[in-house]
Amino acid sequence: MTEQILAELLNFRRDFHRYPESGWTEFRTTAVIAKRLTELGYDITMGEQATSKNQMMGVPDEQTLSTHQERALEQGADACYVSKMTGGHTGLWADLNCGDGPTVALRFDIDANDITEVQDSTHRPVKEGFASENPGVMHACGHDGHAAVGLVLAELLAKDRSRLQGNIRLIFQPAEEGVRGARAMAAAGALTNVEYILGFHLGFQAERTGILIAGTGDFLATTKLNVWYEGVPSHAGAYPEKGKNALLAACTAALNLHAIPRHSGGATRITVGTLKAGQGRNITPPNAYFELETRGITSELDDYMRREAERIIQAAALTWDIKYRIETAGGTKSGESNPEMADLIEREAAAMPVFTEVRKRSSFGASEDYAHFMSTVQEQGGMGSYIQVGADLASGHHTSRFDFDERSMLHATELLYKVIKAMLVK
Amino acid sequence: MTEQILAELLNFRRDFHRYPESGWTEFRTTAVIAKRLTELGYDITMGEQATSKNQMMGVPDEQTLSTHQERALEQGADACYVSKMTGGHTGLWADLNCGDGPTVALRFDIDANDITEVQDSTHRPVKEGFASENPGVMHACGHDGHAAVGLVLAELLAKDRSRLQGNIRLIFQPAEEGVRGARAMAAAGALTNVEYILGFHLGFQAERTGILIAGTGDFLATTKLNVWYEGVPSHAGAYPEKGKNALLAACTAALNLHAIPRHSGGATRITVGTLKAGQGRNITPPNAYFELETRGITSELDDYMRREAERIIQAAALTWDIKYRIETAGGTKSGESNPEMADLIEREAAAMPVFTEVRKRSSFGASEDYAHFMSTVQEQGGMGSYIQVGADLASGHHTSRFDFDERSMLHATELLYKVIKAMLVK
Amino acid sequence: MTEQILAELLNFRRDFHRYPESGWTEFRTTAVIAKRLTELGYDITMGEQATSKNQMMGVPDEQTLSTHQERALEQGADACYVSKMTGGHTGLWADLNCGDGPTVALRFDIDANDITEVQDSTHRPVKEGFASENPGVMHACGHDGHAAVGLVLAELLAKDRSRLQGNIRLIFQPAEEGVRGARAMAAAGALTNVEYILGFHLGFQAERTGILIAGTGDFLATTKLNVWYEGVPSHAGAYPEKGKNALLAACTAALNLHAIPRHSGGATRITVGTLKAGQGRNITPPNAYFELETRGITSELDDYMRREAERIIQAAALTWDIKYRIETAGGTKSGESNPEMADLIEREAAAMPVFTEVRKRSSFGASEDYAHFMSTVQEQGGMGSYIQVGADLASGHHTSRFDFDERSMLHATELLYKVIKAMLVK
Amino acid sequence: MTEQILAELLNFRRDFHRYPESGWTEFRTTAVIAKRLTELGYDITMGEQATSKNQMMGVPDEQTLSTHQERALEQGADACYVSKMTGGHTGLWADLNCGDGPTVALRFDIDANDITEVQDSTHRPVKEGFASENPGVMHACGHDGHAAVGLVLAELLAKDRSRLQGNIRLIFQPAEEGVRGARAMAAAGALTNVEYILGFHLGFQAERTGILIAGTGDFLATTKLNVWYEGVPSHAGAYPEKGKNALLAACTAALNLHAIPRHSGGATRITVGTLKAGQGRNITPPNAYFELETRGITSELDDYMRREAERIIQAAALTWDIKYRIETAGGTKSGESNPEMADLIEREAAAMPVFTEVRKRSSFGASEDYAHFMSTVQEQGGMGSYIQVGADLASGHHTSRFDFDERSMLHATELLYKVIKAMLVK
Repeated sequence: MTEQILAELLNFRRDFHRYPESGWTEFRTTAVIAKRLTELGYDITMGEQATSKNQMMGVPDEQTLSTHQERALEQGADACYVSKMTGGHTGLWADLNCGDGPTVALRFDIDANDITEVQDSTHRPVKEGFASENPGVMHACGHDGHAAVGLVLAELLAKDRSRLQGNIRLIFQPAEEGVRGARAMAAAGALTNVEYILGFHLGFQAERTGILIAGTGDFLATTKLNVWYEGVPSHAGAYPEKGKNALLAACTAALNLHAIPRHSGGATRITVGTLKAGQGRNITPPNAYFELETRGITSELDDYMRREAERIIQAAALTWDIKYRIETAGGTKSGESNPEMADLIEREAAAMPVFTEVRKRSSFGASEDYAHFMSTVQEQGGMGSYIQVGADLASGHHTSRFDFDERSMLHATELLYKVIKAMLVK
Repeated sequence: MTEQILAELLNFRRDFHRYPESGWTEFRTTAVIAKRLTELGYDITMGEQATSKNQMMGVPDEQTLSTHQERALEQGADACYVSKMTGGHTGLWADLNCGDGPTVALRFDIDANDITEVQDSTHRPVKEGFASENPGVMHACGHDGHAAVGLVLAELLAKDRSRLQGNIRLIFQPAEEGVRGARAMAAAGALTNVEYILGFHLGFQAERTGILIAGTGDFLATTKLNVWYEGVPSHAGAYPEKGKNALLAACTAALNLHAIPRHSGGATRITVGTLKAGQGRNITPPNAYFELETRGITSELDDYMRREAERIIQAAALTWDIKYRIETAGGTKSGESNPEMADLIEREAAAMPVFTEVRKRSSFGASEDYAHFMSTVQEQGGMGSYIQVGADLASGHHTSRFDFDERSMLHATELLYKVIKAMLVK
Repeated sequence: MTEQILAELLNFRRDFHRYPESGWTEFRTTAVIAKRLTELGYDITMGEQATSKNQMMGVPDEQTLSTHQERALEQGADACYVSKMTGGHTGLWADLNCGDGPTVALRFDIDANDITEVQDSTHRPVKEGFASENPGVMHACGHDGHAAVGLVLAELLAKDRSRLQGNIRLIFQPAEEGVRGARAMAAAGALTNVEYILGFHLGFQAERTGILIAGTGDFLATTKLNVWYEGVPSHAGAYPEKGKNALLAACTAALNLHAIPRHSGGATRITVGTLKAGQGRNITPPNAYFELETRGITSELDDYMRREAERIIQAAALTWDIKYRIETAGGTKSGESNPEMADLIEREAAAMPVFTEVRKRSSFGASEDYAHFMSTVQEQGGMGSYIQVGADLASGHHTSRFDFDERSMLHATELLYKVIKAMLVK
Repeated sequence: MTEQILAELLNFRRDFHRYPESGWTEFRTTAVIAKRLTELGYDITMGEQATSKNQMMGVPDEQTLSTHQERALEQGADACYVSKMTGGHTGLWADLNCGDGPTVALRFDIDANDITEVQDSTHRPVKEGFASENPGVMHACGHDGHAAVGLVLAELLAKDRSRLQGNIRLIFQPAEEGVRGARAMAAAGALTNVEYILGFHLGFQAERTGILIAGTGDFLATTKLNVWYEGVPSHAGAYPEKGKNALLAACTAALNLHAIPRHSGGATRITVGTLKAGQGRNITPPNAYFELETRGITSELDDYMRREAERIIQAAALTWDIKYRIETAGGTKSGESNPEMADLIEREAAAMPVFTEVRKRSSFGASEDYAHFMSTVQEQGGMGSYIQVGADLASGHHTSRFDFDERSMLHATELLYKVIKAMLVK
């Protein structure tokens, strides 16, 4: 039976891998999930009910959205589901009501990365024919695997429905990259009545197949900012003095942003991740746009970084006498798994021979939109944990050669199944 | 008759304005010119005969070229001519052999700018229906007018053929922006036997209709460089120390490049005109690309700037431990009109009532690909001059609202016609 | 008796405060200490026996040393002792041999800071007449108090000699600022046979009188670098292009050094603390000198920072085509107190009513030259701890208004006395 | 007789070279000049009458002034003269009234540079025993020679007094470096009634003995600014986030200042010539001080540079959230010699066999405080010229090996003598 489950996991995963969709455009992915969960008897909440419009940051423009809706249809999505997501309302949650008992949520993230997959035939997705067909987009973080685990787990749980008590809520979250989706789903009610929440990631710090990390903490709080600079163009040969140079302002900002002092209170991060400036080689660059993120091991530390960043951005504009605009494009909380939850997970994992090395906790040192879900559940009195399931990796997360040992999906499915049963079996 | 000439000039200019094509993609523009000049009896040299492959810098990739060839056909270009230009061999020269006598060349540049024209109805090309139909490309420097003058002048000269002696060569040059076309045409033989050369520009320093500048000097020598930086990506939150940041390298380069010392030997310029870096907000940027240009009032000064620039570019790569590549993307010589030629032009202009202010010479202080043609003719013992024909402007050259008083084309046509006659009438 | 001890502490502390001496010039301070300890019957090791020449980093030049030796004599130092320290061999260690038993070392740092003390009469040292008489030098970290505690403790222990067993070694360390002295003393044999080592600091994280921190860990490893840049001067108005600008190189280095990525492995630091460049306003600056330090919560992290820093320094020199030289000016290890030692200290402190808040451990997050001593003792099989003794502060450490509640010296003296007795009483 | 004149020139020059004094501290130099001119019968205006207090920029503090007055006395200055200069009122003018006729002024600058002279015996001043005895100060621009020429010329003219008509005013100007002295002397009346003014420089563009440049133009207007940044110190290891870093602000300012766009209107300059920041390696630098200058071929261009500079300085302070203060420390006008004056000088020079190459005019491209004198005379209806007298140089101006062919002083003396006679002989 295990091999049959694995076959299903591979099917889903490779299908998602072939048709990757980035944040707020997961039309096909969501439609596939919705269709399957409906077949399994779950109650689906999707569209405008599942993501709160005014909390959706960084949604592409209407034309892009409709182009991607078209693409989803061409790539086989069910039009009935796709139509519900107009405006970028991708993602969904699905409830399996098993009678009285606590509500346990599981979070699966489903979006892909803006990365171009390598074409090279040594890369398994190429060799085995499931490489990305969507130019510039790639599942380079494993969310294709996460979604597959969610669907196969959904099936296992549905079969066990009569033996369980409580409510199981499977949250298939859009826009995890950029940490934008959790806030919009939470605001729409995704966590109503949730007492326990679980999330997981393949690979990451569990960098080999066989490792299991039961609880994860030290999620970094993060803020995402977009910055526009607007100067004045001039002919760079004839009238250099008439221009107001937005490119130099952006460069001054970038260097000084990276020089914000480290903080004695704990880990912080800053990265200007993208920068685009200028109109032509011989024109004083009148425009610049850059995207940055700050992080902090606590929300206070992230706030420190953000305040420093905003002042530096303003000052660099003044340096070159140009205008600026800053937009918040995302952000999430810091977080820490509950040890009690981790204990339970550790126990279950220890009993599975596939896990040759079980760790109680690790310090994440990065951001995860899941932290927003988990911290919110904790604030309403609940508990949560974030599991890392070991997987051999072909290359690091977020690189164009990323691939993972697909058996890790089987390990994740079985572990989550056991943990849910331990919590909800009558 | 003057009004009829003006009508023809408007026809050609507005047609070129509507279908602007940037450097090495002037398929439709060249085809229109070739067809008209053939009708007028000129001998055409075009395609691989007119531009020397190994001197063509900054040619778009094959796919872009073929897309633009397609577009040219859709926009009415004669397929016979378009097919000769495969590979980006746009532009042509046309000879009108009028028997024994010197060869006089006239240069007309025909390419457009990578600028998006304003959509606003106060902009005449919009209001009168000849605004650019090619997104992101615009005739924002007046080359549409230059090409129109060339075609109408060709007709006037052809009618006078029997009264002239010598050879008239009309050079319709591609890729003036980026100063790339002149070198490729000169290497292909465009200047063979040329004893005199004339070029002109509408507007520029002749900033009002009625001004005429007979000779222009102090063309800036210039070098165009493209720079690629290649670092190493990493998850900016989880492993910032594993990345090698190409964006910061580019910013360090840009700031220091602009800080190259001024030179006591005369005017220099440097501009990093465009910069693009990074793959995503939360990835240490592993890539950067920027385009810059240096200039100098003499070729020696431009060489100084280039040498400094290359070292700074290398050092910024070392700063962040990344790889770099520098490509020369263009360049032209400095230049100075011959006073004897300017005298003749000044005399003819002074006799034309439309020119209310005739100046003998001006210092250009910018670069023009024409300088390569003129300097080469002078090196082979000939003479040349560069004329500026006054035109009221709606907005500066290279801006998205650029437009000019179209009567200036009439003035240019008549002046060039008189100057040629003064040189070649039997 | 307590008040008598306090009076002695004040005497010593205020005398040291009035005549502060910075690293390797503590001639008077050492002479005072040597004289007193000799009177008390300690065996003194000083001069070239106490500090290993080739490990002494950042020693001032001969002239400065001899000027300061002169000053020490003028300010009352005993010439006999001063003469032994020629060459900057300041500091000493003193043994009180009490028969068989373990060797217990105590470390007291004695150097002052290069800070100008405020003149203002609200500052107690000014008001009460013991402000610094040495321009530009000030005890702004409390080492005056540490040295005073050492001398009074020495007296208490000497009186108890017959009741103790083992060897007590009091290490009066020079050049703690800049973390330079410990390495030179350890290399000279200061830790030979040492099984236990204790060190302490007034104030710091124990920021109020009454707090006691028994063990301290997470000392940052650190590296101190001095950098010289050498370019070429030129008349900045007449020949700017002939200069090679060392000031701009230093500025480029400073900005990029501060932008070295944070490390996921733990806390790091970098600071370019001083910079001096240029010869005159109208001369292209041909010289620059700057001092920086890197830190890391582990020695590996400090090594990462140092490697990055060295490459960036080299690259900034290349940017402006100048020469560079890097000199290591100091450095110390990371460190962690032994919990067993902290337990003992905690117990003794808990029994003292003056300590209203006793903490077992704190994470230091800064560097201390003591870490070199303690780590070395641990490497040879011994144990150590670093105590922080609470003191109300008038202003932060290393500021020009620094002053501390002098009763804290009494608390430190008594605690150390009790701890030693607990270890060595027969 | 020529050799006797040369001997006198050498005497004076080498004496001045041995005791160099920088701006506003030329106590000994002025005293020597005052004494000699008094002997020769000139009327001396000095002290507070010669330099207007509120126009004296960059005067050292009182203690420095009095230390230098002491030194002047120790080095043989006449106390009677030195006492008149308390407060930094160095320099003087001296009138030789020869009856009715125009007033002709000659300007000689007398200050030295803040440069340390090389010690090496291949340097003639070392070899022949007249190297600087004042540490850190050196005549590295030739003002020692200028002053010598002034004194010997004074003697020649005094002997001819009866044969001349008009008034001769010899202006011995302090603080030419930093272009500070001219404004203060002009404000005090140095140019009252002056109809003609002459100035000269040894060497510079007349880079070989035998060259003579009769008139000089294109003096750069210049502005000198001093900038203070004030941040907040913090322990760089323990609390990096609490500091506000003035050093990084200064570095950001310096880089961006040097990146101010070149101007199409003509030559500009900018140099941050000195920078000093920080208190200690391990303290976030709370202070920075830097000196810069801007220049422009016209006063409008210098104003452009100054405006840009002030905004950039302000913005860099904002970048790091620190305070700033900008002080104007000097400045002079642009300038151009009158061709009529240059004609006369050219004629006289052409008749002197020592001048093997006589040039009518050169473009200076640098600043000279003389331009303030000359422009002021021209504004009041007079004329002026600035002569450059050829001299072989051992090394460039403002370098530590500077030395010049001393025979050039003879050439300068004779030429000026002839020119004055041509203007004023009855």
